[in-house]
Amino acid sequence: MTDRLIAVYAVRADVAGVDARAEALALEQSVELPLAAVFDARVRREVVARVESIAARADGRHTVRVALARETTGDEPGQLLNMLFGNSSLHDDVELVDIEIDAALASAYGGPRHGVRGWREATGALDRPLTCSALKPQGLGPDALADLAGVYARAGIDVVKDDHGLANPPSAPYAARVPAVQAAIDDANRATGGRTVYAPNLTGSLDAIRAQLRVARDCGARAALIAPMVSGVASLAVVAREAGVPILAHPALAGLGRMAPPLLCGRLFRLFGADATIYPYAGGRFGYSASTCAAIASAARDPWAGLAPALPVPAGGMSVERVPEVARAVGPDAMLLIGGSLLAAGAGLEARCRAFVTAVHAAGAPR
Amino acid sequence: MTDRLIAVYAVRADVAGVDARAEALALEQSVELPLAAVFDARVRREVVARVESIAARADGRHTVRVALARETTGDEPGQLLNMLFGNSSLHDDVELVDIEIDAALASAYGGPRHGVRGWREATGALDRPLTCSALKPQGLGPDALADLAGVYARAGIDVVKDDHGLANPPSAPYAARVPAVQAAIDDANRATGGRTVYAPNLTGSLDAIRAQLRVARDCGARAALIAPMVSGVASLAVVAREAGVPILAHPALAGLGRMAPPLLCGRLFRLFGADATIYPYAGGRFGYSASTCAAIASAARDPWAGLAPALPVPAGGMSVERVPEVARAVGPDAMLLIGGSLLAAGAGLEARCRAFVTAVHAAGAPR
Repeated sequence: MTDRLIAVYAVRADVAGVDARAEALALEQSVELPLAAVFDARVRREVVARVESIAARADGRHTVRVALARETTGDEPGQLLNMLFGNSSLHDDVELVDIEIDAALASAYGGPRHGVRGWREATGALDRPLTCSALKPQGLGPDALADLAGVYARAGIDVVKDDHGLANPPSAPYAARVPAVQAAIDDANRATGGRTVYAPNLTGSLDAIRAQLRVARDCGARAALIAPMVSGVASLAVVAREAGVPILAHPALAGLGRMAPPLLCGRLFRLFGADATIYPYAGGRFGYSASTCAAIASAARDPWAGLAPALPVPAGGMSVERVPEVARAVGPDAMLLIGGSLLAAGAGLEARCRAFVTAVHAAGAPR
Repeated sequence: MTDRLIAVYAVRADVAGVDARAEALALEQSVELPLAAVFDARVRREVVARVESIAARADGRHTVRVALARETTGDEPGQLLNMLFGNSSLHDDVELVDIEIDAALASAYGGPRHGVRGWREATGALDRPLTCSALKPQGLGPDALADLAGVYARAGIDVVKDDHGLANPPSAPYAARVPAVQAAIDDANRATGGRTVYAPNLTGSLDAIRAQLRVARDCGARAALIAPMVSGVASLAVVAREAGVPILAHPALAGLGRMAPPLLCGRLFRLFGADATIYPYAGGRFGYSASTCAAIASAARDPWAGLAPALPVPAGGMSVERVPEVARAVGPDAMLLIGGSLLAAGAGLEARCRAFVTAVHAAGAPR
C-alpha cells in the first residue's frame, strides 16, 4: 500500500446512485477531471484515485473507501488534508471519517515526538491520569496570570496551559506573560518539590510561532499549546520538529462540519506531531457523544502505523465531581482538563484545585 | 466601535432559550468562563463579549450579534477566526454568518494589495470579466503541464493557475514545474502579444511557501494561488505582504460546515489579502445556490471597510455554454474559471479555449 493510502468516507446516496457518487468522489479528490478528460496512461493508472469498496452503514449512508495516490499528498500535512477532503468539504453529502495508512507513510510525518511517555517523564506522573488547567480569563495581565499559575502549581496540577484564546494581547503580551508564568511555576515547583509543566499558546504565522518558541525555551517552558486548524497543520508539523517539548493540540475550528472528530483531533493531529489532544467531553458544554469521545481517545493512543501514542485530553465543561466517572471511562493514559469550574471557586480556588488533583490521583491506577 | 467588532451568528434555539444561548455564545467566544467566575472589573467591562441584538430569522433561527473586544483578536488572522468561531465551531446549533468591522480594524489587516485593478493591469483586460483555467490533471510532468499552459495562453486565457491539488509532487516538482510553465506562457505571450498571467500554487509551511515565492519571482510569475484554510490564514496574510503579485484564494477545506461561504470565502479571505476568490458556482459540481454565489460576489468586491475590492471567481463545473448566463449574473468585475470541460475537448482543446475566451469577451461589457 506504500504508493496508496485509503480515505474512508461516509456518503449519503441511494443504492442506485452510490457507485457513481463514489467514482465522482474519487475523481474530485485526485485529478479533479472527468475520467474522459484524463488522457495520460500513467495518470490513469497511478494517480487517479480508486474506489476500493462500498458498504452500507447502519445510519443509512454508505462507507466508501477510496485509495489515493500517496504521490499526490507530498507527505505534507496540508496537502494530505487537501487531497483527503479539500474540494469535497464543499459537498454536504460526504463526511471524511477515517484514513488507513502504513508505517512508511506515518514515519514520513513522524507523529508524536514525546507522546504519552514524554508527558509522564516531564511531570513525574507515572501511573495515573494527568491533571491540567487553563490560564484564563484573557484580559488579565501577566502578574495576575502568573499568580493563577502559581496557585495551580502549588495545588499539584501537572500541566498549566494558556487559555487557547490567550494569544498576544496588549493586556498580556506573550513576551511578558510567558516568562512571568514560567517563573511563578518554577517558584511553586521549588516550594513543593512538584514538577508542574507550562504550555504557552503558540499563535500566528510560523515566524511569530518561532519567536514565541524562542521566548518559551529561554524561560524554560517544558510544553507548548497549538490549535492546528487555526495555525494550519503545517505549523503543527514544524513545531513538532523544532519545539523539543511535548505539544498539546487544541480543537479550535476543528468542529467545522464534516471531518469526523476521531479522525481529525485523534489520528491526524497525532500523525502531524501532537503529543496530546484536547476534545470536548460528553456531558460538558459541547455535544460530543460518549462513543465519539471513546473513539477520539482510541485514535489518539491506540497502536497505529508505528506512531507513538498521544494523550487524550477530555475537557470542555468538566467538574471535580465528574473526575471518577471520566477517569474510569478514559483510563490512566489521559490528561483531565478542568478550567472554568475551578476558577468559579474564587477565593476557594487553591482548595478546589487540590480536590481536583486528589480526585484524579485516587481515580487513576493503570489498567 | 474601534475597540469592538461584531460577530453575527445564526443560532438555532427556541424563543424561550435564545437569550441564554446568546449569552453563553458571547462567553464562549471571549473569556470562556461563566460570568460568575470573572472577578476582574476591567475584564468584565472591556473583554467579555456583549450580546448586542437578537432577532428572528426567516429560517426559524435567530440572528445574534455579539460585540467582541478587538484586543482579544490581536489583529491577527488566525486569532480573529479563533475568537469569531474557534470553540463554537464545535457547537452544531451555531453558524457564523457575518462580521461587522470598521476601517481602522480592516486597515490593520490590509486586505487585497492589488485587487480588481491589479488583475486588470496585469492582464490588460480592462472592461470585461477575466478568463482563467487550471493546469491539470496532477500526475503530468513539467513539460506536459507547460505545453498545456502554452495552449491556454495562445488561446488568450488571462490567468492560468495550477490545479489546487498540484503542490510539490515527484511527477512535477514545484521548482521544475513553475519555471517551465512560466517559460511556455512567456513564449505564447511573445507570439500573440498577449498578457497571460500564471498563478503557481503555494503550499506547505511558511518556509516552503517563501521558497516557492522565490522560485516564482525568479522566473517572472505574476500571480499566486493559495488555499487559506489549508495553509492557515496567517500564511495568506504573509503572502499578501510579501508576494508583490495578485493572490488568488482557493476554497479547499473552506466548506467545513458552519461558516457562511460569503463570510469566509468573500469577506475574510479578502480582509486577509486575497485579490480574487474562487467559489463553486451554482449549477456546477457543488451545491451552492445562486443567492449564495451572489452573496459571495458582493462580499468579495462591494465597498467594505475601506478595503480594495477582490475579484469573485465562479468555478466548479462551469462550461463554455454557460458563459453568457454566468457573466450576466456575476458582471464584468469577475474572473470566470473553466477547467475540466475545456480539457475534455482533447485534441480540440485550443479551439475550445478560444471559444471560452470569445464567449467571455462577447459577454462582458461594464455595467
